[in-house]
Amino acid sequence: AVVRSQAVAIEKEVPESERPETFLREADGPSSGNAHHSAVRARFEKMIRDTQDAVCAAVEAADGGAKFKEDVWSRPGGGGGITRVLQDGAVFEKAGVNVSVVYGVMPPEAYRAAKGDANAKPGPIPFFAAGISSVLHPKNPFAPTLHFNYRYFETDAPKDTPGAPRQWWFGGGTDFTPAYIFEEDVKHFHSVQKQACDKFDPSFYPRFKKWCDDYFLVTHRGERRGLGGIFFDDLNDYDQEMLLSFSTECASSVIPAYIPIIERRKDTPFTDEHKAWQQLRRGRYVEFNLVYDRGTTFGLKTGGRIESILVSLPLTARWEYDHKPEEGSEEWKLLDACINPKDWIDLH
Amino acid sequence: AVVRSQAVAIEKEVPESERPETFLREADGPSSGNAHHSAVRARFEKMIRDTQDAVCAAVEAADGGAKFKEDVWSRPGGGGGITRVLQDGAVFEKAGVNVSVVYGVMPPEAYRAAKGDANAKPGPIPFFAAGISSVLHPKNPFAPTLHFNYRYFETDAPKDTPGAPRQWWFGGGTDFTPAYIFEEDVKHFHSVQKQACDKFDPSFYPRFKKWCDDYFLVTHRGERRGLGGIFFDDLNDYDQEMLLSFSTECASSVIPAYIPIIERRKDTPFTDEHKAWQQLRRGRYVEFNLVYDRGTTFGLKTGGRIESILVSLPLTARWEYDHKPEEGSEEWKLLDACINPKDWIDLH
Repeated sequence: AVVRSQAVAIEKEVPESERPETFLREADGPSSGNAHHSAVRARFEKMIRDTQDAVCAAVEAADGGAKFKEDVWSRPGGGGGITRVLQDGAVFEKAGVNVSVVYGVMPPEAYRAAKGDANAKPGPIPFFAAGISSVLHPKNPFAPTLHFNYRYFETDAPKDTPGAPRQWWFGGGTDFTPAYIFEEDVKHFHSVQKQACDKFDPSFYPRFKKWCDDYFLVTHRGERRGLGGIFFDDLNDYDQEMLLSFSTECASSVIPAYIPIIERRKDTPFTDEHKAWQQLRRGRYVEFNLVYDRGTTFGLKTGGRIESILVSLPLTARWEYDHKPEEGSEEWKLLDACINPKDWIDLH
Repeated sequence: AVVRSQAVAIEKEVPESERPETFLREADGPSSGNAHHSAVRARFEKMIRDTQDAVCAAVEAADGGAKFKEDVWSRPGGGGGITRVLQDGAVFEKAGVNVSVVYGVMPPEAYRAAKGDANAKPGPIPFFAAGISSVLHPKNPFAPTLHFNYRYFETDAPKDTPGAPRQWWFGGGTDFTPAYIFEEDVKHFHSVQKQACDKFDPSFYPRFKKWCDDYFLVTHRGERRGLGGIFFDDLNDYDQEMLLSFSTECASSVIPAYIPIIERRKDTPFTDEHKAWQQLRRGRYVEFNLVYDRGTTFGLKTGGRIESILVSLPLTARWEYDHKPEEGSEEWKLLDACINPKDWIDLH
């Protein structure tokens, strides 16, 4: 009698016993000899799957014992995903690394392109979306939580509107959420993001750092969930090849940005008070994800795979009434930095 | 540097050192000799404040040691509230009992009355809202969480629309959220709700029981957060005096419905597995409150007092990836009852 209802009727995912070589429909496949766009879809899928393998291997190595459990799923009309979760390890409380490849149909109002023929009204527009999404929650309160997500989105050209173009864009980011500030960690993390950005455009890091600070705001508290990183969305005003390379570079930067911090902090001794503060910050993380995060709220409302979407939530979280850290304490410093974002690379 | 930004600019609440006798504006006060509506406002405020006192006393007695902490606040233009929280007691993990009296202004589109003069367009409409809201989270996994909320809402008659009426309505409910089913507890709880309803209208219990089952749905999971109770909203199609008495009766029923269950379950021995399951159900509670609950989401978006709004969240919660209780287990039975609501009074 245990069943799931869905807010929106989309094809229900089905579990698969094996990882397919690709989730792309045949016409999009790497060997289809098809148009350029297929090549981008296929190359993006390969990039996110390689990233998933590499990040999972690095997390397992840092954990030193626990292994990821894998769930593969697909949808009858094409598309699917691989959800990997490591829970209750030696170092990680909960680590999720998901890839998904989704085919869908969007209402014409959501198609934002300048129309080729202003009088033609397009019907529903098929779209393609592929992405990797990951949240890594360590146990030690001095080791930060990491989130990253890189995605590629494409619409078909509307068939009934001659001249209206195919649309595509990239989105993503890498940000981290410590419960305590170690300046060398924050500086290292942001420096790696900046290096990845600077290879492509010197305006990227300052722009995407600010975008990240703006996006991860728990509005009702006036504080960010963490200490930022980079974030961008709807990016299509650069060369497509350049943005594919940029996304790839960002994804490759996850391990060097994060794993050295984990190695430094994973065995730091801590008290119950340190742990309780980390749990309170995890509560803020839950507030952000359930109330504001676009991917989460969109996924919950459109019948996405709930367990894949909510794997981002921490294993444990805490809400104390009216908790206020003592002014000047380490907890207060973290909170202050979440309220007033800093330039971590050039700290004054 | 620690400040709070607000999504909507409303007057910020200020802390008060003492409880005022009333939060009503002078013209609304019990001694103003004013119109009938003032009497309802004043009598409703007295009812919710008496209920707050009675429930807090009963919770403290059941806890056997811990005391509520009280925060009183007011807004410069009138209105205010009393937030009482008991945290980390012997029996209760977190118990919040809040009353608030709010004066505000609603956009004319929200004024739902048939207009007296169809051509007149009303300006912004002043409104009055008073309510009590409470969530009690016990520690023992066999003792259920309780929620109740009773509220009264009134608009002024639009001054610039002759003939358009003053509007008023009542809302509220009492529902409970066990992690494990004890049929005698569920039957007792629902029977007390039914008794309160039956004193006023035999249609109330079946109607408000179903309304409760429909409202507390965690839509993305297709399961309710708990085992229901009663819920009603926008109730104005009965005599106003009758609905005031009905709300009062429901509020008086909270203690006899709940405290006997707490007394029976508060010392039941339990294992780490029982506790982990309770924590998982608390995670669902958080999902409902942050994603769906109207009071919470409205409060977060309109700059209400955040700590009063989020006192409903449990002290601790847990999210495990893809947790599925074994078919036939006690955990499975609870989940099944959250998915398929039952008639608890006439169980077959």
